[in-house]
Amino acid sequence: MCNTVAVTRARWTTETVPLPPRALAWLSQRVGLGEPFEEMPVPAPESGLSTDAFEALEAVAGISVDPVDRLGRAGGLSYLDLLRHRGHGTLAVPDAVVQPSTPDEVLEVLKVCVEHDVAVVPFGGGTSVVGGVEALRGSKSAVVALDLAGLGALVSVDPVSRVAVLQAGMTGPEAERLLGEHGFTLGHVPQSFERATIGGFAATRSAGQASSGYGRFEDMVESLRVATPVGEWVVGAAPASAAGPDLKQLVLGSEGLFGVITEVSVRVRPKPYGPRYEGFVVDGWEAGVDLVRSLAQDGVLADITRLSDVDETEVALELAGPKAATLKKYLRFRGVKQPCLVILGWECRSRSATMSALSGRKVVRLGRAMGVAWLHGRFNGPRQRDALLDAGVCVETLETATHWSRVSELRDAVRAALTAELGDPVVMCHVSHAYETGASLYFTVLVPRDLADPVGQWERAKVAASDAISRLGTITHHHAVGRDHQPWLEKEIGPIGVDVLRAVKAQLDPTGILNPGKLL
Amino acid sequence: MCNTVAVTRARWTTETVPLPPRALAWLSQRVGLGEPFEEMPVPAPESGLSTDAFEALEAVAGISVDPVDRLGRAGGLSYLDLLRHRGHGTLAVPDAVVQPSTPDEVLEVLKVCVEHDVAVVPFGGGTSVVGGVEALRGSKSAVVALDLAGLGALVSVDPVSRVAVLQAGMTGPEAERLLGEHGFTLGHVPQSFERATIGGFAATRSAGQASSGYGRFEDMVESLRVATPVGEWVVGAAPASAAGPDLKQLVLGSEGLFGVITEVSVRVRPKPYGPRYEGFVVDGWEAGVDLVRSLAQDGVLADITRLSDVDETEVALELAGPKAATLKKYLRFRGVKQPCLVILGWECRSRSATMSALSGRKVVRLGRAMGVAWLHGRFNGPRQRDALLDAGVCVETLETATHWSRVSELRDAVRAALTAELGDPVVMCHVSHAYETGASLYFTVLVPRDLADPVGQWERAKVAASDAISRLGTITHHHAVGRDHQPWLEKEIGPIGVDVLRAVKAQLDPTGILNPGKLL
Repeated sequence: MCNTVAVTRARWTTETVPLPPRALAWLSQRVGLGEPFEEMPVPAPESGLSTDAFEALEAVAGISVDPVDRLGRAGGLSYLDLLRHRGHGTLAVPDAVVQPSTPDEVLEVLKVCVEHDVAVVPFGGGTSVVGGVEALRGSKSAVVALDLAGLGALVSVDPVSRVAVLQAGMTGPEAERLLGEHGFTLGHVPQSFERATIGGFAATRSAGQASSGYGRFEDMVESLRVATPVGEWVVGAAPASAAGPDLKQLVLGSEGLFGVITEVSVRVRPKPYGPRYEGFVVDGWEAGVDLVRSLAQDGVLADITRLSDVDETEVALELAGPKAATLKKYLRFRGVKQPCLVILGWECRSRSATMSALSGRKVVRLGRAMGVAWLHGRFNGPRQRDALLDAGVCVETLETATHWSRVSELRDAVRAALTAELGDPVVMCHVSHAYETGASLYFTVLVPRDLADPVGQWERAKVAASDAISRLGTITHHHAVGRDHQPWLEKEIGPIGVDVLRAVKAQLDPTGILNPGKLL
Repeated sequence: MCNTVAVTRARWTTETVPLPPRALAWLSQRVGLGEPFEEMPVPAPESGLSTDAFEALEAVAGISVDPVDRLGRAGGLSYLDLLRHRGHGTLAVPDAVVQPSTPDEVLEVLKVCVEHDVAVVPFGGGTSVVGGVEALRGSKSAVVALDLAGLGALVSVDPVSRVAVLQAGMTGPEAERLLGEHGFTLGHVPQSFERATIGGFAATRSAGQASSGYGRFEDMVESLRVATPVGEWVVGAAPASAAGPDLKQLVLGSEGLFGVITEVSVRVRPKPYGPRYEGFVVDGWEAGVDLVRSLAQDGVLADITRLSDVDETEVALELAGPKAATLKKYLRFRGVKQPCLVILGWECRSRSATMSALSGRKVVRLGRAMGVAWLHGRFNGPRQRDALLDAGVCVETLETATHWSRVSELRDAVRAALTAELGDPVVMCHVSHAYETGASLYFTVLVPRDLADPVGQWERAKVAASDAISRLGTITHHHAVGRDHQPWLEKEIGPIGVDVLRAVKAQLDPTGILNPGKLL
């Protein structure tokens, strides 16, 4: 029997960061620690792929039914996924992993899967936190994970137009490395950056930490090459067009239901010269929201603009190490009653424009050390999740966006819902993406794991929080819909919107092999 | 019999600007004048609407079968439309004009039209130059123009989020007037501004003259309320979202085929304080393109950024009146061999950022007078078209967008195609919308009208130019597809793209009453 815990940890947590003693102490005091996990390895079921289908797939692309390979593509990285890999809940394991190495091979794979009635789950970095890559077979006889790691080439660079064509399986760091050789950057750095792929960014409407400067991923996309069961589709002909509806926007966010994105043409920018990150503190959440809003509406946002609420700031200061006490004392001295941390980072935008907008405001500068600390810890969230689970903590994140006039109401509603459901959780919140008309809100929840029913504990909290989110904002700003946000999609886009998506799905994937059970 | 020429002129040319003597002299010498038009008034055909349908429509909204009303909604403002109204080609006249005054009435009208098998052409300002509002009935028994002038209210303003909800029939000036009372502007000023409507901007993906600053119309839209034959659909829940594909972008550019837009929620900005417009000259087209590209890629574009090629500049200088000679002498003195005019205007962006980027470049400043002259003449194009037709001139415009690396090749190809087809036309070109990865190109063509076959003359030239455009860029950057660009749409979005649009159409408008013969 194959130990799935070891396998899956190895897949996504090669860079696991253990919790420092200070964090453990804080957790134990403020959150409370649960019982350490008993490892309950899940066996990989036998592959249900027919010999015919296996042989037909083998003829057009790489394929493996090895349990280690299949367990490594069983689901994503949500808290529930992590629980499933530890024996709680039902883990859906693909019957095989198919590994094409060209866009044409992807087309061939889809053809074979239509013929053999096999479901296909496109798989990039496997970093979905909404069940977007669960190996569900729907009504199909079997399901394969279509691993796009073989599509990793930089296809072309047009340095005059600043456009590059990247294959879909390329990871964030690899994109930066290859573009860097030409002096360019994509500038798209979500928390999943280290493992997530170009195709995944496009399929889920990803937003990076520097989205205020570089835009969301969909803002960077010039065109897409998509393999569908009815043939190859290339969408996007020019930097802007009025040639009917923007069909690119129908593929972006389609989460593998309409086709498999094989290449993405993206706008690139020169690598930043001397990026700079700084920390600031404002007094109180409302003051912080007001500050970020005015920066956004006056067009002087930093590329990275992140405002933490009082609770998140408290934790950040608590975990800042020996200098925390000095820092708190300094903030008291400066008359700050409710410190809210603001991280600003400039990569391509003008720092002086932001700074002169700050000059008339009550903002305490903490300097570059705090900015650099944020930069170094920017991927720690995902890296520390296994350590948190090991410590008996239920940890998950939620996110949304809404218009400025509702930002605080939405934050309050989500906190109230989580508190009502979970007892006394730690709920931290920050704004990480600001627009002229509104902002995103990102919540981190920590609570001792319910030993009797860890799955139900989070499922109930998720429903309560999502109901609140759905009432006041979008059900997801950048995590996508996947399986977990489905119940709230219809409220957001209406029954007519759902019917439109179904009609497009029926046109492009008439037999319904693509990513069953997601989005719709 | 009703004189259609008088009727239709009254509709769209209340502000007709006569050609100044200097322009007439230049035209006569450079272009050549054709014979003045013999007016051949077109009779309005009898209304083909059944009594049943008339009565059913009358029960839910205003309706008129008056020939003057119907002729006033017969087609748009393309050169071919103008010829049709003068008796050349076939003028499609709607059987009735229906005038709802609320979004609910629009829904009711659609229901009645489904029941009575009547085609519906949504009609805003009637400024389409691509046959977008031709009263085609398709396979239906009759066709009505759905005039949205009754939907003209400012529904709400959220000053904190800077979001306003406007009804679809509101014209550009009316939107500015109503928003202005709240201290806001939309900043969307295409050449059709004076008559075009909010719904039309959305349905055609309009781009205004200040698009570099305010964005294209679709960039301003937060959400849309759409009446469809299957019910009302509201799309757009937050400033940004990852809740599946962006369905807003499927309605934007749908040209009335999927539904009738009744309300649009838009991002607004504070009214500009002290906008400023200036003229500059660069030496040669390539230097100009290089300049605009670097402004766009360095993020320091003016809100209005317009670069004319040598031919367009020559005409502008020629028509500049008595000061033209002095100006030309000055440019020669400054060593400019091939003057290309650049108009820059700042309304919300930073002038100093643009100006410091210009400082290292060979750019001759012409000062504010030239900028103000452009501002005062910004709507003259449409206003002078009847006067040009009267003078025997065939005048039309073409537009596209492409990536920077192809801008000059595309310009050359269109010029070559037009010259091959039309003999010795005047072809003027400018960049009016710049993006990081590319730009729009806008062409104006002037040639003496072919008296024997004025329709065929332009149709052939349009095909030749559109083939060139389609090879190197998008078939339309902001004029939309309508009837005239249909032959090139499939090349741009692929047969799969066409099928997707058809599937959405079938879902939302199963009996096909909406705007037959357009887009698809």
